[in-house]
Amino acid sequence: MLREDVPYFDLTSRIMDLETIEAEILFTPKSDVTVCGTEEAEKIFGMLGAETSLLKKSGEHAGQDQTVFRAYGNAEQLHMGWKVVQNILEHFSGIATRTRSMVDGANRGKPNTEVCGTRKHLPGIKHLSLKALCAGGGYPHRLGISDSVLIFSNHYDLLGGIGAVCRELPSIRSRCPEKKVAVEVETLDHAVMAAEAGADIIQLDKLKPEAVEKIVNTIKPSHRHIVIAAAGGVNASNAEAYGAAGADVLVSSWMYFGKPVDYKVVVRKV
Amino acid sequence: MLREDVPYFDLTSRIMDLETIEAEILFTPKSDVTVCGTEEAEKIFGMLGAETSLLKKSGEHAGQDQTVFRAYGNAEQLHMGWKVVQNILEHFSGIATRTRSMVDGANRGKPNTEVCGTRKHLPGIKHLSLKALCAGGGYPHRLGISDSVLIFSNHYDLLGGIGAVCRELPSIRSRCPEKKVAVEVETLDHAVMAAEAGADIIQLDKLKPEAVEKIVNTIKPSHRHIVIAAAGGVNASNAEAYGAAGADVLVSSWMYFGKPVDYKVVVRKV
Amino acid sequence: MLREDVPYFDLTSRIMDLETIEAEILFTPKSDVTVCGTEEAEKIFGMLGAETSLLKKSGEHAGQDQTVFRAYGNAEQLHMGWKVVQNILEHFSGIATRTRSMVDGANRGKPNTEVCGTRKHLPGIKHLSLKALCAGGGYPHRLGISDSVLIFSNHYDLLGGIGAVCRELPSIRSRCPEKKVAVEVETLDHAVMAAEAGADIIQLDKLKPEAVEKIVNTIKPSHRHIVIAAAGGVNASNAEAYGAAGADVLVSSWMYFGKPVDYKVVVRKV
Amino acid sequence: MLREDVPYFDLTSRIMDLETIEAEILFTPKSDVTVCGTEEAEKIFGMLGAETSLLKKSGEHAGQDQTVFRAYGNAEQLHMGWKVVQNILEHFSGIATRTRSMVDGANRGKPNTEVCGTRKHLPGIKHLSLKALCAGGGYPHRLGISDSVLIFSNHYDLLGGIGAVCRELPSIRSRCPEKKVAVEVETLDHAVMAAEAGADIIQLDKLKPEAVEKIVNTIKPSHRHIVIAAAGGVNASNAEAYGAAGADVLVSSWMYFGKPVDYKVVVRKV
Amino acid sequence: MLREDVPYFDLTSRIMDLETIEAEILFTPKSDVTVCGTEEAEKIFGMLGAETSLLKKSGEHAGQDQTVFRAYGNAEQLHMGWKVVQNILEHFSGIATRTRSMVDGANRGKPNTEVCGTRKHLPGIKHLSLKALCAGGGYPHRLGISDSVLIFSNHYDLLGGIGAVCRELPSIRSRCPEKKVAVEVETLDHAVMAAEAGADIIQLDKLKPEAVEKIVNTIKPSHRHIVIAAAGGVNASNAEAYGAAGADVLVSSWMYFGKPVDYKVVVRKV
Amino acid sequence: MLREDVPYFDLTSRIMDLETIEAEILFTPKSDVTVCGTEEAEKIFGMLGAETSLLKKSGEHAGQDQTVFRAYGNAEQLHMGWKVVQNILEHFSGIATRTRSMVDGANRGKPNTEVCGTRKHLPGIKHLSLKALCAGGGYPHRLGISDSVLIFSNHYDLLGGIGAVCRELPSIRSRCPEKKVAVEVETLDHAVMAAEAGADIIQLDKLKPEAVEKIVNTIKPSHRHIVIAAAGGVNASNAEAYGAAGADVLVSSWMYFGKPVDYKVVVRKV
Repeated sequence: MLREDVPYFDLTSRIMDLETIEAEILFTPKSDVTVCGTEEAEKIFGMLGAETSLLKKSGEHAGQDQTVFRAYGNAEQLHMGWKVVQNILEHFSGIATRTRSMVDGANRGKPNTEVCGTRKHLPGIKHLSLKALCAGGGYPHRLGISDSVLIFSNHYDLLGGIGAVCRELPSIRSRCPEKKVAVEVETLDHAVMAAEAGADIIQLDKLKPEAVEKIVNTIKPSHRHIVIAAAGGVNASNAEAYGAAGADVLVSSWMYFGKPVDYKVVVRKV
Repeated sequence: MLREDVPYFDLTSRIMDLETIEAEILFTPKSDVTVCGTEEAEKIFGMLGAETSLLKKSGEHAGQDQTVFRAYGNAEQLHMGWKVVQNILEHFSGIATRTRSMVDGANRGKPNTEVCGTRKHLPGIKHLSLKALCAGGGYPHRLGISDSVLIFSNHYDLLGGIGAVCRELPSIRSRCPEKKVAVEVETLDHAVMAAEAGADIIQLDKLKPEAVEKIVNTIKPSHRHIVIAAAGGVNASNAEAYGAAGADVLVSSWMYFGKPVDYKVVVRKV
Repeated sequence: MLREDVPYFDLTSRIMDLETIEAEILFTPKSDVTVCGTEEAEKIFGMLGAETSLLKKSGEHAGQDQTVFRAYGNAEQLHMGWKVVQNILEHFSGIATRTRSMVDGANRGKPNTEVCGTRKHLPGIKHLSLKALCAGGGYPHRLGISDSVLIFSNHYDLLGGIGAVCRELPSIRSRCPEKKVAVEVETLDHAVMAAEAGADIIQLDKLKPEAVEKIVNTIKPSHRHIVIAAAGGVNASNAEAYGAAGADVLVSSWMYFGKPVDYKVVVRKV
Repeated sequence: MLREDVPYFDLTSRIMDLETIEAEILFTPKSDVTVCGTEEAEKIFGMLGAETSLLKKSGEHAGQDQTVFRAYGNAEQLHMGWKVVQNILEHFSGIATRTRSMVDGANRGKPNTEVCGTRKHLPGIKHLSLKALCAGGGYPHRLGISDSVLIFSNHYDLLGGIGAVCRELPSIRSRCPEKKVAVEVETLDHAVMAAEAGADIIQLDKLKPEAVEKIVNTIKPSHRHIVIAAAGGVNASNAEAYGAAGADVLVSSWMYFGKPVDYKVVVRKV
Repeated sequence: MLREDVPYFDLTSRIMDLETIEAEILFTPKSDVTVCGTEEAEKIFGMLGAETSLLKKSGEHAGQDQTVFRAYGNAEQLHMGWKVVQNILEHFSGIATRTRSMVDGANRGKPNTEVCGTRKHLPGIKHLSLKALCAGGGYPHRLGISDSVLIFSNHYDLLGGIGAVCRELPSIRSRCPEKKVAVEVETLDHAVMAAEAGADIIQLDKLKPEAVEKIVNTIKPSHRHIVIAAAGGVNASNAEAYGAAGADVLVSSWMYFGKPVDYKVVVRKV
Repeated sequence: MLREDVPYFDLTSRIMDLETIEAEILFTPKSDVTVCGTEEAEKIFGMLGAETSLLKKSGEHAGQDQTVFRAYGNAEQLHMGWKVVQNILEHFSGIATRTRSMVDGANRGKPNTEVCGTRKHLPGIKHLSLKALCAGGGYPHRLGISDSVLIFSNHYDLLGGIGAVCRELPSIRSRCPEKKVAVEVETLDHAVMAAEAGADIIQLDKLKPEAVEKIVNTIKPSHRHIVIAAAGGVNASNAEAYGAAGADVLVSSWMYFGKPVDYKVVVRKV
C-alpha cells in the first residue's frame, strides 16, 4: 500500500529538505469512532523508520479529538506515511463505526442478535474489510463461497423451482453433514416450505421487519433450532426493528459503504 | 481477487452438482452508468474457463437494462466468478459514473475544466480506482507523492509560515525545473502572495465558488499562465459553479465514495 | 514449482543438444489410480511451449498402463517438465487414490457416509492437497480455522473441564448462529453430555468402531439431527467398519501420507 | 503457510474469548527424532505476537518427551499457530529422522558414504524438504536440473543406445568442464563401458548390494577416481548393505515419504 | 536477490565447516566513491543473522580504503551474503559516483544546473537505480511515462510534422494543466517554434554545447520561464560545458553504465 | 518490468489521443549483434494487446539494419511497451554480443575452450543475465553458491593457509563426491600443490596468458584430467591468447558490463 502512494520518495519533502526537521504526526478522529487500522499504521511508519505509539487498538472506541496514533521521526518520513495511514484509518474506522452502530441497534431490538457482513466488500481488500467488520462487533456472513452453503433464487431457476430444490434438501444436507444449509426465500409460504424440508437457516431477502416478525412467529414455535436471518436493506437505522422482529442474524453490506470518517492529521516540530 | 472469494471451490454448486448445467450469466446495470470493469470481468471468467462476451468497454455509457457483459459456461464456473465480478463492476462503475457527472458539470460551467481525483482512494486498489477515474473522463491529481510538488499548510507550520515559504519559492522551483510547483492557500491574500512568488499552480482549499471567482479575477489578468485549482468539498452538485467561477482544475475525492451502482445479475440455462 | 526444479535450463539436455529432437512424453500409472494433477501438467508443459493432450481429468479412474497425459515438443522442453509433472501426478494421485478407497469402504459400510480430510496435510501445498481430496470423493473437514467451530480437549483444560464448557454451549452457539458447533469427546458419557448441551456435531476421537456404534445407538434415537463424526486412526482398512457402526462422517489425515503412486514416464522420438 | 490455515482468525477461539487467557504451548516428540522446523516455528509464533523459546535447533537430536519448542502468549494466538507449526515439525522432522537413520546405516557399512536425496520431494516445498534432508545429515543429489549432468536410459533411447552415447562422452565432458558427468546404468557391462568412456560418476539403478559390490570391485581398481552411486530402492533398512558393498553415494527418495513423526502438543494456562 | 545467489546454502562453507568460525566481513572501496547500497547490505546480512555496522550511508563520500560496511557472524553466514552485497555496492556506488561527477561538472558550468537520469536504466531494478541516481545528487527525468508529458520526433511523424503538433500545443497544454509540457527538438528553428507555441520545457537532442548556447541565447530573453534541457551524449566529461552553455537541466543515461566500482572484501577471524 | 515504467498509462499518448492511430513498431540494431530478449518483447507487447512478430530468436545473429522484432497495434500500446522492450533488447543483446566475441576469440586460441560468466552480474536480474550469457555461447560458472565448490584465498586465511587446506582436500572431496572441487591459486607453486592434493579444477586468478601457459605445461602432462580455468581480467581482447595458452575454461564478468548495444526504434502508421 505504501508503494502505491510513494513509489520512490516524497518529492516535495526532498526539495524542501524536510529530512532535517524532527517532528511528530498525530491522527485524531473528528467525531466519535470505533477505531480500525492503528496496527497497520504502526507497521507502515515502522517500515519508514519512525518511532510509533499506538494509543487505541482496533475495536476500541475513541472520542472526538482523542488521538489514536502518533509517530515520531523526521518530517520526510512522516509525510511519506501520512496519506496511506490516513486513508486506512478513515476507511476502515468508517466500516467499524457503522458496524458498531448496527450491532448496538440490533441488540437493543433483541439481545445477542448477530450482525454479519456480506461478501459485497470492495474486491482486493477483503482482509482489512473483515478486520473492520470484526472490530465493530460484527462477523463475516460467509468467508467466501468455499466454506458455506447458501441456496438462493438463482438456484431455483436453474433446478426447476423452489419446490424441486426443497424436495432435494435432505439429500443436499447429507452431502455436507458438517455445515448448516441456508435457504433464501422472499415469502412466508416459501419460508415454511424450507423449514419443513429441513433448512438449518432461513434467510429472508428484502422483507420489512413486520414480515420478518410474522415468519418468525410462524416458524419458530415448531422449529426452535432454525436460525432466521434478515438480509437486503438492513442498516443502522432499522437494525433495532429487525432485532425486535425476532431475526437471529442481520446480514448486510451497508457498513462497507458511505463516506470515510474524518481524521485530523497534524505534523509538528518536536 | 478471485482467490479471496473462492479459495477452493463453490461448495453450494458442488453439492448441488451445478457443474452439469450449461448456462449464461448476464450483468446489466439498473440505472444509466459509465461502465468500468468489463475487461477485468473478461479475465476472471476466462481464468475460470468460461467463454466471454464484452459488450461495453470501460468508459462507455450503458443505459438502464443494457447488458454490458455476458459469460457462458457451466453453472458452477459462473457462480464462482459471479460475486467478484459484480463487486468490481458495481464499485468501479460507481466511481466512473460519479466522475463523469462531475466532468459534465464542470464543462457546462466552463469548457475544458479538468476534473482530477485525489490520492484519497481506498488503499490497496489504486490501480482500478485510477482506471475508473479515467473511464469517467477525469485525471489523477497526483499519481503519488514521488512525481509532483504540492506545498500546503503543514509545510508552512514546519518552515516558519507561508511568507517564509514564498520567499524560498524561486529556489524551490530551480530544484525541480521539470515540474510545476503547486501551492495550496485558503485566502485571497495568500493566493496573491503565492502568485507573485512564482507558483505555477495555486490550489484553493475549501473556498466557495464566489471566493474562487474573486481570486481568479484578481490573479489571472496579470498571471495568465498560473493554473487555478479548486479543492475541498467539490462534487457533482457544485462542479458547474466552480467551472463557471473560472477554476481550471477541480480536485476532489468525492467520486471515490458513495454506494456502488446496482447491477442486475442473471444466471440462466442455455 | 517448475522454477524450483529448473531454475534456468536443463544442463544435460543442453549439452547433448536435445533441443533438435522432436519427441513425445507419456505419463502412465503402473497400477489402478484415481487421477489428480493432469490439469497442472497441462499448464506446466504449456508454459514450456509444448503441445499437450489431457487424457484423464482429475477425479477420473485410470487403469494400469492407461496413459493419462501426453505432451509433444522438443526433447529439451519435455525433460524440463518431466520431473515436476511426475512428482505432482504421483503425489496427488496418491492422495486421490487413497481417498477414493476410503470413500468406497465407508459407503459399503453405510451409504452416504462422508469422508473428510483434516488440516494435517503438508503445509505450503494446501490447494493441491484439497483438490486431490475432492478428486477422490472426499471433502475438507475444515478449510482452515477461520470458518468452523470445533471444541476439543485442550479447550476443556483451559476453561475448567468439559462440564464447564457444556454449560456454556448454548451461549457459544448463539454467537455463531450460522455454524454447526462440533464438540470432540472420547467417552460415551461425554458424548451424552455434549448432545444434551446442544452440540450439532459430536466428534469421537480414537474410538474403536464398536465404541462408535454404542454411542450412535445411545444418542441418535433422541437426537436425530446430531451428526456423529469418527476421527483418529480411521483409514481405508477400517472405513467400512466405521461406516457400518453408524458414523455420518469419517475424519482422517491418513490419505495425505504414504508412498506416491508410481507413474511410468517415457520420452520417445516422434 | 499460516495464511493457508488461518485466513482471518480462529473462529473457535474468538467465540470462546480465548484472547483473555495467558497460556503456553509446548511441542514434544512422542519418539526419538532428529528435529527439523523449530526455526520456522519461531517465525510463525513471532508473527502472531507470541514470545518464543527454541529449545532444539534443526539437526539436533531430541529424545522422546523432550520439548523442542515453546511459545507464550494469549490462548488465541497459540491456537492460531498450533496446527501449522505441528504440521511443519511433524513432516520435516520425519524427513530428517529418516535421513539420519539412512546416514547412520550407510556409515556403519562404510565410513564417509554419502546419502543424497533425489528431486522426487513434494513439489512446492523444495526449500524445507532440502533443509530437512541436510538436518538429517544428507545432501541433495541435484539441486535441480540446471546445475548437474546425469545421462540415463531415456537419453540412450533418444540418441541411439548407450554405445552411441558413450562414444560421445569425451565431447560431452569437454562441454561442461566444471561438472562431473554422471551416467546411469543397470548392468556390469554398461558400467564398464561408461567407465572406459570417461564417466566421472556411475549411478547404478535398482541393483542389489551384491551386484553393486561386483561392479565396485571390477571398476575401482583401474578407475580409482570414479564415484559409484547406488540408486533405486535404497532406504534405511539396506543402507548399511549398500555402504558395505562399496557404494560412495546412496541416492534415494525414500526419506521424503512415510508417516510424519508424532509430536504431542499441549496448550496450558500459565 | 539473496535467493538468486544462495538458493539453499553455501556448499563450500558447509563442506569446510565454516559455521564454527566467528568472523567479520569488511567492504572497502578501492577508489574514492559516492556510496550507495549500505542500507541494503544491512538488510541482507541482518536476514542471515549477522550483526551489522553501517559506516557510510548512501549518498556519503568514502575515500579509498575507507570501510563503508562491516558485518559480524559465523563465516558461513558471511560467505552467503558476500557476493550479493558486493554486487549491490559495486554497481550502485558506480551509478552514484558517476552521477556525482556529472553534477559537480554541471555546477561548475553554472550553479543549480540539474542532472536528470533517463528511463534507460536496466529493467527490473529501477528502484535501486533511482536510489543511486539520487544518492549522487541527480533526479529522475521521468519516473515513468504515466507522470509526465514529453513530445518527441516520433510523435511528429505520427501526427503530421512538428508544425502540426505545435499548432495543437495550446489544446494539449489545457488537457494537462498540472504538468509542464516538454517538446524535444533538434534545431534552432524548431526550438523557436516550440517556444512560441507555449512549450514549458524545450529538450535539445544531441546538440553540441555551442548549439545549445545559441538556442539559450535566442529563446531565454523573450521566454524567461522556459526550461532548456540538453539530452543525448551528455556525460561527466562535457557536463561543465553544457552547464556553461546555459542548459537548466542535463538529461542522460550515461551514469547507468560502465564498469562497477571495485570494493575490496575481506573476511577475517575475530 | 512493464509496471515499473508504465504504472498506469502513457500520459503523453493519452493527451494526444494516440489510441486512435494504427501503427507498427520496429526494433533494429544499429550494428551487428547477437540478439537477446525478443521472446520477452513478445510477452510484453502481447500483454499490451498488440500483435507481434518475432524475427530473430535469442542467440541468433542479426546484421546492422536487420529488424529483429515488430509489433502492430494502436500507437498508445506501442508507446507503452517501447522503452521497456528497448532497454531489454539493448542491455541483454549487449551481454550476448560481448559473450559471443569472447567465445569466438577463445575458440580461435584453442577449439572447445569454454567461456563462463561469473556471479558478478547485476543483482535482481540474474535470470535474464544468464539467458544472455547462454545466447552468446557461454555458460554460467556457478549458478549460485549452493551448487558448486570453489576454495579461494579467503578460505586459506580462515583455515590456516593454502597448505593446511590442501592437506584437507581428500577429506573435503569425499564430502561432495558428486562435485568437482575447484581451487583458486595465484602462483605456479600453489597450482602444483593443489594438483597434487587432488583438485579437480585449478582456477588461476589474475595471471597473464604466459603464466597460464607455463602452469598448463607443468601440470597437464601428469594430471591430464585436471581442468585449468583462467579468471580475472579475461575479456574479448585477450580471450584468444588465454585459449592458446591452454586454459580449458575462461571465467569472466567482463561481458556483463559496458554500454548497451544501440537499437533504432521506429513507430510508424500502417
